[in-house]
Amino acid sequence: MVRPIAVEDARRKLMEALPRLAGADTPLHRSLCAMRVTASPVTAVSDLPAFDRSLVDGFAVRCGSGLRLRLAGAVAMGRPAPPLPDGAHALAVPTGGMLPSGAGAVVMKEDAAVEDGWVHIRRAPEPGQNIVRRGADASAGEDVVPAGRRLRPPEMAMLATVGVEQVAVRPKPRIAVLSTGDELVPAGREPGPGQVPDSNGPALCAALERDGADAAFLGIVPDERAAVVEGVRRGLAWDALLCTGGSSVGERDFVQGALQHVMGVAPLFSGISIRPGRPTAAFAAGGRWAVALPGHAVSALVVYELLVREAVLRFGGETAPRPRGMMPATLSEGVRAPADRDLFERVRLEDGRAVPLRGASATVGNLARADGLVHCPAGSVLPAGASVAVSLLD
Amino acid sequence: MVRPIAVEDARRKLMEALPRLAGADTPLHRSLCAMRVTASPVTAVSDLPAFDRSLVDGFAVRCGSGLRLRLAGAVAMGRPAPPLPDGAHALAVPTGGMLPSGAGAVVMKEDAAVEDGWVHIRRAPEPGQNIVRRGADASAGEDVVPAGRRLRPPEMAMLATVGVEQVAVRPKPRIAVLSTGDELVPAGREPGPGQVPDSNGPALCAALERDGADAAFLGIVPDERAAVVEGVRRGLAWDALLCTGGSSVGERDFVQGALQHVMGVAPLFSGISIRPGRPTAAFAAGGRWAVALPGHAVSALVVYELLVREAVLRFGGETAPRPRGMMPATLSEGVRAPADRDLFERVRLEDGRAVPLRGASATVGNLARADGLVHCPAGSVLPAGASVAVSLLD
Repeated sequence: MVRPIAVEDARRKLMEALPRLAGADTPLHRSLCAMRVTASPVTAVSDLPAFDRSLVDGFAVRCGSGLRLRLAGAVAMGRPAPPLPDGAHALAVPTGGMLPSGAGAVVMKEDAAVEDGWVHIRRAPEPGQNIVRRGADASAGEDVVPAGRRLRPPEMAMLATVGVEQVAVRPKPRIAVLSTGDELVPAGREPGPGQVPDSNGPALCAALERDGADAAFLGIVPDERAAVVEGVRRGLAWDALLCTGGSSVGERDFVQGALQHVMGVAPLFSGISIRPGRPTAAFAAGGRWAVALPGHAVSALVVYELLVREAVLRFGGETAPRPRGMMPATLSEGVRAPADRDLFERVRLEDGRAVPLRGASATVGNLARADGLVHCPAGSVLPAGASVAVSLLD
Repeated sequence: MVRPIAVEDARRKLMEALPRLAGADTPLHRSLCAMRVTASPVTAVSDLPAFDRSLVDGFAVRCGSGLRLRLAGAVAMGRPAPPLPDGAHALAVPTGGMLPSGAGAVVMKEDAAVEDGWVHIRRAPEPGQNIVRRGADASAGEDVVPAGRRLRPPEMAMLATVGVEQVAVRPKPRIAVLSTGDELVPAGREPGPGQVPDSNGPALCAALERDGADAAFLGIVPDERAAVVEGVRRGLAWDALLCTGGSSVGERDFVQGALQHVMGVAPLFSGISIRPGRPTAAFAAGGRWAVALPGHAVSALVVYELLVREAVLRFGGETAPRPRGMMPATLSEGVRAPADRDLFERVRLEDGRAVPLRGASATVGNLARADGLVHCPAGSVLPAGASVAVSLLD
């Protein structure tokens, strides 16, 4: 039997082998591209802002023109600013208003007093004070959003600011999900004795959609070599394939063999030294990739979150997926990893405490109650009271 | 002028005043309800699993029947198990297979040797070893997913496991966004001198959709009392309203006054002691709520993330929104909060370091480059090299 590899090595091997998603980039109107991934950089065509602006409500002044200035008028919001007359003059300017030519600083309204057409300021302003300079957001020709970036709300603000109408985004990866197992019935059908509903299909499809993929559930195939091979063949018509069940190397575990046969390559790895999730294998060939996940519901989802999620994000075009959020907490009771496997213990968060849920990897309830995972390296113990970083599940 | 309140007090006041979202719960087929919020608990109608199952590939045995057992057959996956004959017998059982009646433990295949119809096991099994008990996921009548829970992938697995076909989910809140400001032109239209594109509308709509709301952008109104009042009236036809700009108490800041006038109540608070984001006010009355956000792009989005996001999630029915993810990092250079305001510094994450982006709150580029926020309490300094928890922006 092949030796299981460390989860970090498994991650690296899968990310390195990941093909580039085929298919054309889509030009989308800006209003439709939130949470999509840019295919090319977005460039500012002109300086942004296009003019110096005031950061505050106040008075635009020349630096070094004294503390007593004649009020020469006001800048109107959204209008060209009149020039600041030479000498000891000030122009009222609103927050966001255009800076008059000649002005070197803005004095906050709160730091000035106006009387009979004169502005008295408390102290001489620093040059550039309370001014946003032309080009502070971006200079003409600058890339304001790089290629391969998921468009969060701040990037949406940036797209609006540079005035682009259409954004080229990467296609969504189309990823198939195949459940295998003689014991499985489709969710919603009453299971007979010895049977259980398939929960991995619906859960993995939800995770894929959450991560920006289009998920296609191919249903359940029995533990028979020919059926699994045929299922894998169907699955590889999509851009990638996630299989669950039969991923080990037992006599009725046909998934690894079927993937090897259909894809014509050896696995990138077979077995990861983690609990839960050991019987996991990955393949990449011919522009497609596939992961054989364990059948146990908790194992399948934990491996998805540890390994597959990042692959889905990168395959979808993200060059630097943002890290998963953590939450510092105090462990309520000790956990111990096996000698040869890293433990990813499911925990509930409760007033700053991380409460281990224990429970077998076959029980779905365990994961549905979990807020996150705590990593305990192989052979080590995390005692009660230990400070841990809980990796949040979303 | 009203004294600004602390951000935590602002949060508490808004959450306490939040009305319950009107509108009927929607029964949705299970396959459509991912990331929606449950309206009522989901209950298991029977024990899950419905039978004791083996956790491993191995042999089902009686406890205390010795180390040499006659192999009496095999349990087939997904089929009723034959009973285990009395005495020193074993039945082969696959991972997930039904436990034969009479069996008290499962011995892993790796811990046994089979020869001539006999199974030799290395050591006597512990009672219950390698068995998932009937009801381990849920007992009949147990709530497996509470009301007010967002349905993540693990909850989707749970719904499939309990076999529900339809799930009652909370309606999506319909939240309007109104931009105010004489200087604003709609994103996509060429701004004239003194004008800038409205970036808050598109950014807030994207944030609302990300957080499970239906966003309606009402466009831009100028800084005129009557226009703002009319815009606020239109906005309050929705379940809630976010306004940007004119949220301070300057002579051309009409938003707070308009909200107070139309909603007929004083603000819950007016001004928060934070940078960026001080000129923020919130209102709740008649089953609606509204927040007046600053006009500066960074300020508006930071206040959204600190305050409004949680209100949107709770208004959408989540009883305990999951905490925002954090990332531990080392500050690359020191930051200093003003004496009277908490600073939320925008930072980029770079190899475990949090790099402050500084830059004015009016510059969008600043936030588009940020991975998260670092909180520096009023009057304090975080020196270079300080360990900080970066609150991730997604």
